[in-house]
Amino acid sequence: MAEEFESLDKILEKHIPSEELKIVQRLLYGSTPKKIQVDSDLEAKGLEKDFELACYGFECQKEGLRAPRQVRVALIQNQIVLPTSAPVENQRSALFKRIGEIIDVAGQAGANIVCLQEAWTMPFAFCTRERLPWTEFAEPAEDGASTKFLSNYAQKYGMVIVSPILERDQVHGDVLWNTAVIISHTGAVIGKTRKNHIPRVGDFNESTYYMEGNTGHRVFETKFGKIAVNICYGRHHPQNWMMYGLNGAEIVFNPSATLGGLSEPFWPIEARNAAMANSYFTCGINRVGTEMYPNAFTSGDGKEAHRDMGHFYGSSYVAGPDGSRTPGLGRLKDGLLLVDMDLNLCRQVKDKWGFRMTQRLDLYAKGLKEASSLDFKPKIIRDESV
Amino acid sequence: MAEEFESLDKILEKHIPSEELKIVQRLLYGSTPKKIQVDSDLEAKGLEKDFELACYGFECQKEGLRAPRQVRVALIQNQIVLPTSAPVENQRSALFKRIGEIIDVAGQAGANIVCLQEAWTMPFAFCTRERLPWTEFAEPAEDGASTKFLSNYAQKYGMVIVSPILERDQVHGDVLWNTAVIISHTGAVIGKTRKNHIPRVGDFNESTYYMEGNTGHRVFETKFGKIAVNICYGRHHPQNWMMYGLNGAEIVFNPSATLGGLSEPFWPIEARNAAMANSYFTCGINRVGTEMYPNAFTSGDGKEAHRDMGHFYGSSYVAGPDGSRTPGLGRLKDGLLLVDMDLNLCRQVKDKWGFRMTQRLDLYAKGLKEASSLDFKPKIIRDESV
Repeated sequence: MAEEFESLDKILEKHIPSEELKIVQRLLYGSTPKKIQVDSDLEAKGLEKDFELACYGFECQKEGLRAPRQVRVALIQNQIVLPTSAPVENQRSALFKRIGEIIDVAGQAGANIVCLQEAWTMPFAFCTRERLPWTEFAEPAEDGASTKFLSNYAQKYGMVIVSPILERDQVHGDVLWNTAVIISHTGAVIGKTRKNHIPRVGDFNESTYYMEGNTGHRVFETKFGKIAVNICYGRHHPQNWMMYGLNGAEIVFNPSATLGGLSEPFWPIEARNAAMANSYFTCGINRVGTEMYPNAFTSGDGKEAHRDMGHFYGSSYVAGPDGSRTPGLGRLKDGLLLVDMDLNLCRQVKDKWGFRMTQRLDLYAKGLKEASSLDFKPKIIRDESV
Repeated sequence: MAEEFESLDKILEKHIPSEELKIVQRLLYGSTPKKIQVDSDLEAKGLEKDFELACYGFECQKEGLRAPRQVRVALIQNQIVLPTSAPVENQRSALFKRIGEIIDVAGQAGANIVCLQEAWTMPFAFCTRERLPWTEFAEPAEDGASTKFLSNYAQKYGMVIVSPILERDQVHGDVLWNTAVIISHTGAVIGKTRKNHIPRVGDFNESTYYMEGNTGHRVFETKFGKIAVNICYGRHHPQNWMMYGLNGAEIVFNPSATLGGLSEPFWPIEARNAAMANSYFTCGINRVGTEMYPNAFTSGDGKEAHRDMGHFYGSSYVAGPDGSRTPGLGRLKDGLLLVDMDLNLCRQVKDKWGFRMTQRLDLYAKGLKEASSLDFKPKIIRDESV
């Protein structure tokens, strides 16, 4: 079974001799970021707490007029801790405890920005189409339980935390949103941003819980650079990635929950393509494990009802604007990926490849306006002989 | 040296045991299209004429109300034949002869649509910034030497041919364009389409020869489906791919000329991402070999002047809307890639993933209009503590 192997990278490393492995890695990953040794204390903590710990650094040229803007980013992928049949409060507090353990290591490793996976406080229960108990996991972005919980860590380690949750919007009729909260290194909430594109594919029945986001493509200017969050299914839409770039993002996080049987060949392509096309860093984070539900549900695929969506395959990674990327975390375990990057690389790549200069925005503004009109006529030239 | 190995696929097949190879291929290529055995006569011809011949078929579900729309597409990648110092007429006729040999095999193999590489009638001489003799390769799209030459093959085999050339626009002041001519299976010219985005990177000095295309994102409705052509550097711009999709393309060709040192890690990502994002097939074609010029030129990279751009790495491939792709042709040799596809797959994938339904075009029409305005204010939320 596909679920039983650890990662693509491990298979390649096991079989391919080192000279040829270098070629394979160059073709697959560009100029692979360098592996960085982390402190042995922290390594021991990862082993003790049973999560994978990996660290890489992207290369960047020195400039004469700008100092390097070196940032250490941390991505956390994890399984749920308790069964989905446990009381909501217990499920959530077990997740808080687990994430606390991993964030502590990130903080001690000097991470500047941490991003968690999509809807990290809960199982990804939207497959069930049931409301209670799952909607109880929703909370206000500004002062919900998870925001308060993470705010302490942000302050303690002086780091920015991106916290993707199920939001309860009490101001607007108690509706739900799929939202990321951006917590400052001071512990204050800088703001929130919502998932712009909602899936209707397979078990992803999210469109019955919340609507397309109404917060646009805002970028958050933090102590550690300009960041944005493209939540999960938004990564399938290149125009979504593009708008975050146009608003100035230097790092775009893509907290996700996606399945081996559905999207695994898409995963290494989309966030990486976005990094190249937009001259910024992208960070793909996917949850891990198989989540069983009390009641069986159908997947709209003509098969029998069943109690799990399939395997969330982790494989979190970071892609650079220059076409390079890190190896991924594994497919089976919780993990912490630490990645060092100099944000100056973004502008260096813009100057080299010129994608912003050559992108002809006005042409596309006009084209999309026409295409979204009800009486749009596609520009088709017919072979009159047919 | 990177130039000396044949392809990524060959390295993987050599070292990885078959069970694990299947996993690797699934992760890298999705549900890999099946290898198809071609007629032994044609195989012999490939061997005799020293070009690689490979054939794959994408899978597609049967439908109740639509018959399959099975199409065989042929991609041709090739080196120049004579040195760039040979007389222009000889260089061109040697290329005509070579392409004729390969097209004959494509035609005998039942190809319905053939696409050649970018500026296939000439060396990719724009690195030199010299005009004569290179601009002599330019010709009118409608009735130039290469169009007449290919028209015969189109008629003989009843196939559509996409011919990317350097165009001389005699109607508009003799200016040059980077253009693809679409030749009907009847031999008539259906129309032409121009390169929308012109590079200014490294040795790609094309912007001193021709401007950004003015033919928009037209799609050609041929006997074998709706096709479009995104020439070379246009593949770096997701919005360009998107517009061809919005106009109804089912196959988008990406005839290219690109170099190992520059773009090789981008190559497997961009056309494939476009196929996924737009629910159509994409065909990446790259020339092969190293082209030496009489006079040295500089690359704007602080290095010594030199007489070649580097190695064009071939690696042509086809990507499907479902996230799958074929292996690539090799990096070193001329090649003919035959690929069978049922165009019904495009709509099947649209129905499954829903990217067209969820793409919120009006949001982006508005966003791009704002972003292209001179007084655009990026949507930035600042951490006021910084």
